[in-house]
Amino acid sequence: MLTPKEIEDAQASALRMLQQAGIFITPAERMTIEVADLGLGELAKTGLEIVVYVNTERYCAKELVMFPRQTCPEHRHPAVEGQPGKMETFRCRWGRVWLYVPGEPVSQAKGRPPSGSEAYYTVFHEIELNPGDQYTIPPNTLHWFQADDEGAIVSEFSSTSHDESDIFTDPRIRRIPEVPEP
Amino acid sequence: MLTPKEIEDAQASALRMLQQAGIFITPAERMTIEVADLGLGELAKTGLEIVVYVNTERYCAKELVMFPRQTCPEHRHPAVEGQPGKMETFRCRWGRVWLYVPGEPVSQAKGRPPSGSEAYYTVFHEIELNPGDQYTIPPNTLHWFQADDEGAIVSEFSSTSHDESDIFTDPRIRRIPEVPEP
Repeated sequence: MLTPKEIEDAQASALRMLQQAGIFITPAERMTIEVADLGLGELAKTGLEIVVYVNTERYCAKELVMFPRQTCPEHRHPAVEGQPGKMETFRCRWGRVWLYVPGEPVSQAKGRPPSGSEAYYTVFHEIELNPGDQYTIPPNTLHWFQADDEGAIVSEFSSTSHDESDIFTDPRIRRIPEVPEP
Repeated sequence: MLTPKEIEDAQASALRMLQQAGIFITPAERMTIEVADLGLGELAKTGLEIVVYVNTERYCAKELVMFPRQTCPEHRHPAVEGQPGKMETFRCRWGRVWLYVPGEPVSQAKGRPPSGSEAYYTVFHEIELNPGDQYTIPPNTLHWFQADDEGAIVSEFSSTSHDESDIFTDPRIRRIPEVPEP
Protein backbone atom coordinates (compact mmCIF):
# COMPACT_ATOMS: atom_id res chain seq x y z
CA MET A 1 0.00 0.00 0.00
CA LEU A 2 1.26 3.47 -0.78
CA THR A 3 2.18 5.69 2.14
CA PRO A 4 0.60 9.15 2.43
CA LYS A 5 4.02 10.60 1.54
CA GLU A 6 4.28 8.46 -1.61
CA ILE A 7 0.80 9.52 -2.67
CA GLU A 8 1.61 13.19 -2.05
CA ASP A 9 4.86 12.95 -4.01
CA ALA A 10 3.15 11.25 -6.94
CA GLN A 11 0.40 13.87 -6.93
CA ALA A 12 3.02 16.64 -6.96
CA SER A 13 4.86 15.01 -9.87
CA ALA A 14 1.63 14.54 -11.81
CA LEU A 15 0.71 18.17 -11.19
CA ARG A 16 4.07 19.34 -12.52
CA MET A 17 3.56 17.30 -15.68
CA LEU A 18 0.07 18.69 -16.17
CA GLN A 19 1.38 22.23 -15.74
CA GLN A 20 4.20 21.56 -18.19
CA ALA A 21 1.57 20.42 -20.70
CA GLY A 22 -0.53 23.56 -20.12
CA ILE A 23 -3.40 21.61 -18.57
CA PHE A 24 -5.07 23.45 -15.70
CA ILE A 25 -6.64 21.63 -12.82
CA THR A 26 -8.23 23.34 -9.85
CA PRO A 27 -6.77 23.32 -6.31
CA ALA A 28 -9.59 20.93 -5.29
CA GLU A 29 -8.71 18.58 -8.15
CA ARG A 30 -5.03 18.66 -7.16
CA MET A 31 -5.94 17.16 -3.80
CA THR A 32 -7.88 14.35 -5.41
CA ILE A 33 -5.50 13.16 -8.12
CA GLU A 34 -5.87 9.40 -7.88
CA VAL A 35 -2.56 7.61 -7.48
CA ALA A 36 -3.22 4.02 -8.54
CA ASP A 37 -0.50 1.49 -7.79
CA LEU A 38 -3.03 -1.29 -8.35
CA GLY A 39 -1.83 -3.09 -5.27
CA LEU A 40 1.53 -4.10 -6.74
CA GLY A 41 3.57 -1.59 -4.73
CA GLU A 42 5.80 -0.62 -7.65
CA LEU A 43 4.23 2.67 -8.72
CA ALA A 44 7.20 3.88 -10.78
CA LYS A 45 6.79 0.81 -12.99
CA THR A 46 3.13 -0.13 -12.76
CA GLY A 47 0.26 2.25 -12.19
CA LEU A 48 -0.97 5.66 -13.22
CA GLU A 49 -2.14 9.02 -11.93
CA ILE A 50 -5.70 10.01 -12.75
CA VAL A 51 -7.73 13.21 -12.72
CA VAL A 52 -11.41 12.31 -13.08
CA TYR A 53 -13.16 15.30 -14.60
CA VAL A 54 -16.60 13.76 -14.78
CA ASN A 55 -18.17 10.31 -14.52
CA THR A 56 -21.93 10.32 -15.06
CA GLU A 57 -24.28 7.46 -15.88
CA ARG A 58 -23.74 8.31 -19.55
CA TYR A 59 -20.11 9.33 -20.09
CA CYS A 60 -16.78 9.84 -18.41
CA ALA A 61 -13.70 12.00 -19.01
CA LYS A 62 -10.33 11.73 -17.30
CA GLU A 63 -6.77 12.88 -17.67
CA LEU A 64 -4.24 10.06 -17.29
CA VAL A 65 -0.75 11.09 -16.22
CA MET A 66 2.00 8.54 -16.73
CA PHE A 67 5.52 8.84 -15.39
CA PRO A 68 8.46 7.82 -17.61
CA ARG A 69 7.99 4.17 -18.65
CA GLN A 70 5.09 3.77 -16.25
CA THR A 71 2.69 1.04 -17.39
CA CYS A 72 -1.05 0.64 -17.06
CA PRO A 73 -1.22 -3.17 -16.96
CA GLU A 74 -3.29 -5.38 -19.24
CA HIS A 75 -7.01 -5.37 -18.53
CA ARG A 76 -10.45 -5.28 -20.08
CA HIS A 77 -13.80 -3.74 -19.24
CA PRO A 78 -16.56 -6.36 -19.14
CA ALA A 79 -20.31 -5.77 -19.40
CA VAL A 80 -21.74 -4.29 -16.20
CA GLU A 81 -25.39 -4.26 -15.11
CA GLY A 82 -26.60 -5.33 -18.53
CA GLN A 83 -24.66 -2.57 -20.29
CA PRO A 84 -21.84 -3.37 -22.73
CA GLY A 85 -18.37 -2.94 -21.25
CA LYS A 86 -16.73 0.46 -21.13
CA MET A 87 -15.69 1.85 -24.51
CA GLU A 88 -12.83 4.33 -24.35
CA THR A 89 -10.93 6.73 -26.55
CA PHE A 90 -7.34 7.57 -25.60
CA ARG A 91 -6.04 10.85 -26.97
CA CYS A 92 -2.40 11.67 -26.39
CA ARG A 93 -1.97 15.25 -25.19
CA TRP A 94 1.69 15.34 -24.29
CA GLY A 95 4.62 12.92 -24.56
CA ARG A 96 4.27 9.54 -26.20
CA VAL A 97 2.50 6.35 -25.29
CA TRP A 98 2.47 2.85 -26.75
CA LEU A 99 -0.86 1.11 -26.58
CA TYR A 100 -1.23 -2.66 -27.02
CA VAL A 101 -4.39 -4.42 -28.15
CA PRO A 102 -5.21 -7.82 -29.68
CA GLY A 103 -4.01 -8.29 -33.26
CA GLU A 104 -0.84 -8.86 -35.23
CA PRO A 105 1.99 -8.51 -32.69
CA VAL A 106 4.97 -6.30 -33.52
CA SER A 107 8.29 -8.10 -33.71
CA GLN A 108 10.02 -5.57 -31.44
CA ALA A 109 7.57 -3.91 -29.07
CA LYS A 110 8.69 -0.44 -27.98
CA GLY A 111 6.84 -0.85 -24.71
CA ARG A 112 8.24 -3.40 -22.28
CA PRO A 113 6.14 -5.33 -19.79
CA PRO A 114 7.42 -4.47 -16.31
CA SER A 115 10.10 -6.90 -15.19
CA GLY A 116 8.71 -9.73 -13.11
CA SER A 117 5.23 -9.33 -14.62
CA GLU A 118 5.89 -10.49 -18.18
CA ALA A 119 3.55 -13.46 -17.82
CA TYR A 120 0.58 -11.13 -17.47
CA TYR A 121 1.03 -9.33 -20.80
CA THR A 122 -0.52 -11.22 -23.70
CA VAL A 123 -1.49 -8.71 -26.43
CA PHE A 124 1.18 -7.01 -28.52
CA HIS A 125 -0.43 -5.24 -31.44
CA GLU A 126 1.26 -1.86 -31.05
CA ILE A 127 -0.26 1.58 -31.56
CA GLU A 128 2.00 4.57 -31.01
CA LEU A 129 0.25 7.73 -29.87
CA ASN A 130 1.94 11.10 -30.13
CA PRO A 131 0.26 14.41 -29.22
CA GLY A 132 -2.98 14.71 -31.18
CA ASP A 133 -3.19 10.98 -31.95
CA GLN A 134 -6.04 8.94 -30.56
CA TYR A 135 -7.40 5.41 -30.58
CA THR A 136 -10.74 3.94 -29.52
CA ILE A 137 -10.85 0.61 -27.68
CA PRO A 138 -14.05 -1.45 -28.05
CA PRO A 139 -15.74 -2.88 -24.94
CA ASN A 140 -14.23 -5.93 -23.26
CA THR A 141 -10.99 -5.75 -25.29
CA LEU A 142 -7.68 -6.51 -23.59
CA HIS A 143 -5.28 -3.54 -23.61
CA TRP A 144 -2.26 -2.16 -21.81
CA PHE A 145 -0.16 0.93 -22.35
CA GLN A 146 3.17 2.41 -21.40
CA ALA A 147 4.61 5.93 -21.57
CA ASP A 148 7.97 6.50 -23.21
CA ASP A 149 11.10 7.71 -21.40
CA GLU A 150 9.66 11.21 -20.86
CA GLY A 151 6.23 10.19 -19.60
CA ALA A 152 2.89 11.05 -21.16
CA ILE A 153 -0.47 12.66 -20.61
CA VAL A 154 -3.50 11.02 -22.20
CA SER A 155 -7.10 12.22 -22.21
CA GLU A 156 -9.60 9.41 -21.81
CA PHE A 157 -13.10 9.96 -23.20
CA SER A 158 -15.40 7.03 -22.50
CA SER A 159 -18.70 5.58 -21.50
CA THR A 160 -19.30 5.39 -17.74
CA SER A 161 -16.37 4.10 -15.67
CA HIS A 162 -16.95 1.18 -13.32
CA ASP A 163 -13.34 0.75 -12.24
CA GLU A 164 -14.20 -1.90 -9.66
CA SER A 165 -15.36 -4.20 -12.49
CA ASP A 166 -12.14 -4.07 -14.52
CA ILE A 167 -10.59 -7.47 -15.14
CA PHE A 168 -6.79 -7.54 -15.06
CA THR A 169 -4.72 -10.34 -16.55
CA ASP A 170 -2.45 -10.24 -13.50
CA PRO A 171 -4.40 -11.88 -10.64
CA ARG A 172 -2.30 -10.01 -8.05
CA ILE A 173 -3.76 -6.68 -9.11
CA ARG A 174 -6.32 -4.83 -7.01
CA ARG A 175 -7.86 -1.94 -8.95
CA ILE A 176 -9.45 -0.43 -5.84
CA PRO A 177 -7.09 0.07 -2.89
CA GLU A 178 -7.82 -2.16 0.08
CA VAL A 179 -8.33 0.00 3.11
CA PRO A 180 -6.95 -1.57 6.29
CA GLU A 181 -9.32 -2.06 9.19
CA PRO A 182 -8.98 0.75 11.71
CA MET B 1 -23.45 31.11 -46.02
CA LEU B 2 -19.75 31.34 -45.26
CA THR B 3 -17.38 31.55 -48.22
CA PRO B 4 -14.53 29.02 -48.49
CA LYS B 5 -12.15 31.88 -47.67
CA GLU B 6 -14.08 32.79 -44.51
CA ILE B 7 -14.06 29.16 -43.40
CA GLU B 8 -10.34 28.85 -44.06
CA ASP B 9 -9.59 32.06 -42.15
CA ALA B 10 -11.69 30.95 -39.18
CA GLN B 11 -9.98 27.54 -39.17
CA ALA B 12 -6.57 29.25 -39.18
CA SER B 13 -7.57 31.51 -36.29
CA ALA B 14 -8.93 28.57 -34.32
CA LEU B 15 -5.74 26.62 -34.94
CA ARG B 16 -3.63 29.53 -33.66
CA MET B 17 -5.70 29.66 -30.48
CA LEU B 18 -5.38 25.90 -29.95
CA GLN B 19 -1.61 26.11 -30.43
CA GLN B 20 -1.41 29.03 -28.01
CA ALA B 21 -3.24 26.87 -25.45
CA GLY B 22 -0.86 23.94 -26.03
CA ILE B 23 -3.58 21.76 -27.54
CA PHE B 24 -2.32 19.60 -30.41
CA ILE B 25 -4.54 18.62 -33.26
CA THR B 26 -3.40 16.57 -36.23
CA PRO B 27 -3.03 17.96 -39.78
CA ALA B 28 -6.13 15.93 -40.76
CA GLU B 29 -8.09 17.49 -37.90
CA ARG B 30 -6.97 20.97 -38.92
CA MET B 31 -8.71 20.51 -42.27
CA THR B 32 -11.94 19.48 -40.61
CA ILE B 33 -12.36 22.13 -37.92
CA GLU B 34 -16.06 22.87 -38.14
CA VAL B 35 -16.83 26.55 -38.54
CA ALA B 36 -20.44 26.96 -37.46
CA ASP B 37 -22.08 30.29 -38.20
CA LEU B 38 -25.47 28.66 -37.61
CA GLY B 39 -26.86 30.34 -40.68
CA LEU B 40 -26.84 33.85 -39.24
CA GLY B 41 -23.88 35.09 -41.29
CA GLU B 42 -22.28 36.94 -38.38
CA LEU B 43 -19.58 34.48 -37.33
CA ALA B 44 -17.54 36.99 -35.33
CA LYS B 45 -20.57 37.52 -33.08
CA THR B 46 -22.54 34.27 -33.27
CA GLY B 47 -21.11 30.82 -33.82
CA LEU B 48 -18.18 28.69 -32.81
CA GLU B 49 -15.32 26.58 -34.12
CA ILE B 50 -15.39 22.89 -33.26
CA VAL B 51 -12.93 20.01 -33.29
CA VAL B 52 -14.85 16.76 -32.89
CA TYR B 53 -12.48 14.23 -31.37
CA VAL B 54 -14.96 11.38 -31.15
CA ASN B 55 -18.71 10.88 -31.36
CA THR B 56 -19.80 7.29 -30.78
CA GLU B 57 -23.21 5.86 -29.94
CA ARG B 58 -22.19 6.16 -26.25
CA TYR B 59 -20.16 9.35 -25.78
CA CYS B 60 -18.73 12.38 -27.50
CA ALA B 61 -15.76 14.70 -26.94
CA LYS B 62 -15.06 18.00 -28.68
CA GLU B 63 -12.92 21.06 -28.34
CA LEU B 64 -14.88 24.30 -28.74
CA VAL B 65 -12.89 27.33 -29.85
CA MET B 66 -14.52 30.72 -29.35
CA PHE B 67 -13.24 33.97 -30.72
CA PRO B 68 -13.34 37.10 -28.52
CA ARG B 69 -16.95 37.72 -27.46
CA GLN B 70 -18.20 35.03 -29.84
CA THR B 71 -21.51 33.54 -28.64
CA CYS B 72 -22.98 30.09 -28.93
CA PRO B 73 -26.65 31.03 -29.01
CA GLU B 74 -29.36 29.72 -26.70
CA HIS B 75 -30.43 26.14 -27.37
CA ARG B 76 -31.32 22.83 -25.79
CA HIS B 77 -30.83 19.17 -26.60
CA PRO B 78 -34.16 17.28 -26.66
CA ALA B 79 -34.67 13.53 -26.38
CA VAL B 80 -33.70 11.70 -29.56
CA GLU B 81 -34.76 8.22 -30.61
CA GLY B 82 -36.10 7.36 -27.18
CA GLN B 83 -32.87 8.44 -25.46
CA PRO B 84 -32.78 11.39 -23.03
CA GLY B 85 -31.38 14.57 -24.57
CA LYS B 86 -27.65 15.17 -24.70
CA MET B 87 -26.01 15.79 -21.35
CA GLU B 88 -22.81 17.79 -21.55
CA THR B 89 -19.93 18.94 -19.38
CA PHE B 90 -18.10 22.11 -20.36
CA ARG B 91 -14.56 22.42 -19.05
CA CYS B 92 -12.73 25.67 -19.66
CA ARG B 93 -9.18 25.03 -20.89
CA TRP B 94 -8.06 28.50 -21.84
CA GLY B 95 -9.52 31.99 -21.58
CA ARG B 96 -12.84 32.66 -19.92
CA VAL B 97 -16.41 31.89 -20.78
CA TRP B 98 -19.75 32.89 -19.30
CA LEU B 99 -22.38 30.20 -19.43
CA TYR B 100 -26.09 30.93 -18.95
CA VAL B 101 -28.69 28.44 -17.78
CA PRO B 102 -32.17 28.66 -16.20
CA GLY B 103 -32.22 29.97 -12.64
CA GLU B 104 -31.83 33.17 -10.69
CA PRO B 105 -30.70 35.77 -13.26
CA VAL B 106 -27.73 37.98 -12.49
CA SER B 107 -28.48 41.67 -12.33
CA GLN B 108 -25.58 42.56 -14.63
CA ALA B 109 -24.70 39.73 -17.00
CA LYS B 110 -21.08 39.81 -18.11
CA GLY B 111 -22.04 38.11 -21.37
CA ARG B 112 -24.09 40.19 -23.78
CA PRO B 113 -26.58 38.71 -26.24
CA PRO B 114 -25.42 39.65 -29.74
CA SER B 115 -26.97 42.93 -30.87
CA GLY B 116 -30.10 42.40 -32.91
CA SER B 117 -30.71 38.98 -31.37
CA GLU B 118 -31.60 39.98 -27.82
CA ALA B 119 -35.12 38.58 -28.12
CA TYR B 120 -33.77 35.07 -28.45
CA TYR B 121 -31.88 35.00 -25.16
CA THR B 122 -34.11 34.09 -22.22
CA VAL B 123 -31.96 32.45 -19.50
CA PHE B 124 -29.55 34.53 -17.44
CA HIS B 125 -28.29 32.50 -14.51
CA GLU B 126 -24.55 33.13 -14.95
CA ILE B 127 -21.70 30.67 -14.45
CA GLU B 128 -18.19 31.95 -15.03
CA LEU B 129 -15.70 29.36 -16.19
CA ASN B 130 -11.98 30.00 -15.97
CA PRO B 131 -9.32 27.43 -16.88
CA GLY B 132 -9.95 24.25 -14.90
CA ASP B 133 -13.56 25.14 -14.10
CA GLN B 134 -16.36 22.99 -15.44
CA TYR B 135 -20.13 22.72 -15.39
CA THR B 136 -22.53 19.95 -16.40
CA ILE B 137 -25.75 20.80 -18.21
CA PRO B 138 -28.65 18.34 -17.80
CA PRO B 139 -30.53 17.10 -20.88
CA ASN B 140 -33.03 19.42 -22.55
CA THR B 141 -31.91 22.48 -20.55
CA LEU B 142 -31.67 25.86 -22.27
CA HIS B 143 -28.15 27.29 -22.31
CA TRP B 144 -25.96 29.76 -24.14
CA PHE B 145 -22.39 30.90 -23.64
CA GLN B 146 -20.02 33.64 -24.63
CA ALA B 147 -16.23 34.00 -24.54
CA ASP B 148 -14.68 37.06 -22.93
CA ASP B 149 -12.64 39.70 -24.77
CA GLU B 150 -9.71 37.29 -25.32
CA GLY B 151 -11.70 34.30 -26.55
CA ALA B 152 -11.82 30.87 -24.95
CA ILE B 153 -11.28 27.18 -25.47
CA VAL B 154 -13.71 24.77 -23.84
CA SER B 155 -13.61 20.98 -23.80
CA GLU B 156 -17.02 19.41 -24.15
CA PHE B 157 -17.51 15.91 -22.73
CA SER B 158 -20.99 14.55 -23.39
CA SER B 159 -23.34 11.80 -24.35
CA THR B 160 -23.72 11.25 -28.10
CA SER B 161 -24.11 14.42 -30.19
CA HIS B 162 -27.11 14.69 -32.52
CA ASP B 163 -26.48 18.27 -33.63
CA GLU B 164 -29.28 18.19 -36.18
CA SER B 165 -31.80 17.78 -33.35
CA ASP B 166 -30.72 20.82 -31.33
CA ILE B 167 -33.51 23.29 -30.70
CA PHE B 168 -32.48 26.95 -30.81
CA THR B 169 -34.54 29.76 -29.33
CA ASP B 170 -33.82 31.87 -32.42
CA PRO B 171 -35.96 30.46 -35.24
CA ARG B 172 -33.61 31.89 -37.87
CA ILE B 173 -30.82 29.54 -36.81
CA ARG B 174 -29.83 26.54 -38.91
CA ARG B 175 -27.48 24.24 -36.96
CA ILE B 176 -26.52 22.25 -40.05
CA PRO B 177 -25.40 24.35 -43.02
CA GLU B 178 -27.76 24.28 -45.97
CA VAL B 179 -25.88 23.12 -49.01
CA PRO B 180 -26.98 24.88 -52.18
CA GLU B 181 -28.20 22.73 -55.05
CA PRO B 182 -25.40 22.17 -57.56
